[in-house]
Amino acid sequence: MSESNSVMKIALDAMGGDFAPHTEVEGALQALNESPEKIRIILVGDEKKIEQELKKHSYNGNEIEIVHASEVITMHDSPNKAIREKKDSSLVVAANLVKEGKADALVSAGNTGAVGVASIFIIGRIKGVSRPTIAAPIPNERHSFTYISDAGAFVDSKPHHLVEFATLTSTYLKEVLDFPNPSVGLLNVGEEESKGLKFTKETTELLKKTDLNFYGNIEGRDIFKGTVDIALCDGFVGNLLLKQAESMISFLRTKFKQFAETSLWAKLQIGLAKSAVKKALYDADVNNIGGTPLLGINGITIIGHGSSSPKGIKNMILQAFRAYKANLVIKLKEAIEDEHQRTQSS
Amino acid sequence: MSESNSVMKIALDAMGGDFAPHTEVEGALQALNESPEKIRIILVGDEKKIEQELKKHSYNGNEIEIVHASEVITMHDSPNKAIREKKDSSLVVAANLVKEGKADALVSAGNTGAVGVASIFIIGRIKGVSRPTIAAPIPNERHSFTYISDAGAFVDSKPHHLVEFATLTSTYLKEVLDFPNPSVGLLNVGEEESKGLKFTKETTELLKKTDLNFYGNIEGRDIFKGTVDIALCDGFVGNLLLKQAESMISFLRTKFKQFAETSLWAKLQIGLAKSAVKKALYDADVNNIGGTPLLGINGITIIGHGSSSPKGIKNMILQAFRAYKANLVIKLKEAIEDEHQRTQSS
Repeated sequence: MSESNSVMKIALDAMGGDFAPHTEVEGALQALNESPEKIRIILVGDEKKIEQELKKHSYNGNEIEIVHASEVITMHDSPNKAIREKKDSSLVVAANLVKEGKADALVSAGNTGAVGVASIFIIGRIKGVSRPTIAAPIPNERHSFTYISDAGAFVDSKPHHLVEFATLTSTYLKEVLDFPNPSVGLLNVGEEESKGLKFTKETTELLKKTDLNFYGNIEGRDIFKGTVDIALCDGFVGNLLLKQAESMISFLRTKFKQFAETSLWAKLQIGLAKSAVKKALYDADVNNIGGTPLLGINGITIIGHGSSSPKGIKNMILQAFRAYKANLVIKLKEAIEDEHQRTQSS
Repeated sequence: MSESNSVMKIALDAMGGDFAPHTEVEGALQALNESPEKIRIILVGDEKKIEQELKKHSYNGNEIEIVHASEVITMHDSPNKAIREKKDSSLVVAANLVKEGKADALVSAGNTGAVGVASIFIIGRIKGVSRPTIAAPIPNERHSFTYISDAGAFVDSKPHHLVEFATLTSTYLKEVLDFPNPSVGLLNVGEEESKGLKFTKETTELLKKTDLNFYGNIEGRDIFKGTVDIALCDGFVGNLLLKQAESMISFLRTKFKQFAETSLWAKLQIGLAKSAVKKALYDADVNNIGGTPLLGINGITIIGHGSSSPKGIKNMILQAFRAYKANLVIKLKEAIEDEHQRTQSS
């Protein structure tokens, strides 16, 4: 990993999203404009298509570099197979740049599973981490975000994996996002310790022995409420909750549209309400957040939605930059090492 | 069970909700007014308090009967312990009325776990049902509801339990709610059959062998979207998803309030938007739905929110009435028997 005082280099999978490379190129240029410090972006993908996009913006600076990749991993590809077989895909080439130290971060709005597999098997895990985790932000009533961890990197995790997820996510929130003392809640069907599964009871016992700011059990309603900073769970549960929470916006849009169709007055009311609702729910638009980090990787990986807008891509790049400036990987390594030492000495 | 052409008798736990017996009495009177046929409501609880509430409404009809119960099971009581020890609680007395055939349904806005335990251990299960299920409606984009089953009656269910949940819920939707051919989706982390847990794969294999209208895997976003009528899962997952979905309304209210506080113009906008949003999201207010049935019981049980309004109580009573008119318990028995015969002959 490069030092945080040199110019950061970001490998952007330019073919990942649904509107690639158009969205990726525009997002990269926005990020260069808005980044508080100089960064370099390596656009990885079909050279000709990327150049065409750059021409539209008459860009002629030196912060962008293109690395050609002839293949694309699609949303329909099986992650493991795609990573093995599409060696010259934009994602695999970008991940290799990070592995070889030619880039400091991987940013992709492509096939989430494939980005995870590429990160774990090409960039590699931090020593001592058995399972990396996706820490996905959900806006909450406290003007902040609740991070669901694991939001779907793995299914069927064991209690000791959840302790790793909590350690990694807590460190990320503290070091990169300036949460002073991130609180960790265990998602369960009731607040009482006696509630839930053998799995949740064992996880609670392990969490109590850590130095983490462990709150205890939380329920499904506590995610939007913001009772804690980190909502801990297995990736099966986390993925379902994340996708349900994200689908709220589409649900609201459809419900407003359906109501608007009931009368002219309703249409007028919804017309007036629209901009207020949009502003009030600014934080719930995934493009305003960007993506989610995959924590526990020996490098920085930011995973975004396939449907990301240029603004979404820009925010993913800026997220990667913040993680780099905060020496995220070093901090995660230290936290995992501390946790292991504590466990062994106890 | 009484015949569906006699006058239905509903045992209402008058001490269950957060504002009992005020809300229960008012809800009962509303139900008597709105019920399409004559029904009788047995208010179970503190006789004096109930009479006081009735006096406020100067009610002097003969559709209401009071059965005194000296104890109350609170939200903080442990369900199993409470049912064993509080023999003269409104809930236990009401459940016994159903068991003894003196009432056709149990309706309660009390401690959900306790209502479940009372129903299972006092009223009893339908023969052949190992685990009853809570089928909880979530509004969807298709002008309808997606029923999460199991929404938390049990945790750690096995694949064959999920097949029971699907059979029970599908029969309820068909017979009581007039869904022509209810579709069943299995909640999972991806659409492909290869995705998910050993648990989901085994459940899929079992579901394919049934006569159910099985759609395949669905994801977290499909609940609000309404891809299927029944979103099938273990009660641990279902309870988390249900509580997250229900908390959306409180989240929106808080976000609108926070935005309104940013400027006078924002306040005005939100003021104008409020009624439209409320109307557009009519279906998302739990009081407009009522409660959720516990399916698989040898009787009709409707469980409601502790915070139910009189309107919520009224809707719970009307739900119980619809289930009674549709001969729900008989239909469930037939469906479970058919399912067992099919399994044994195959």
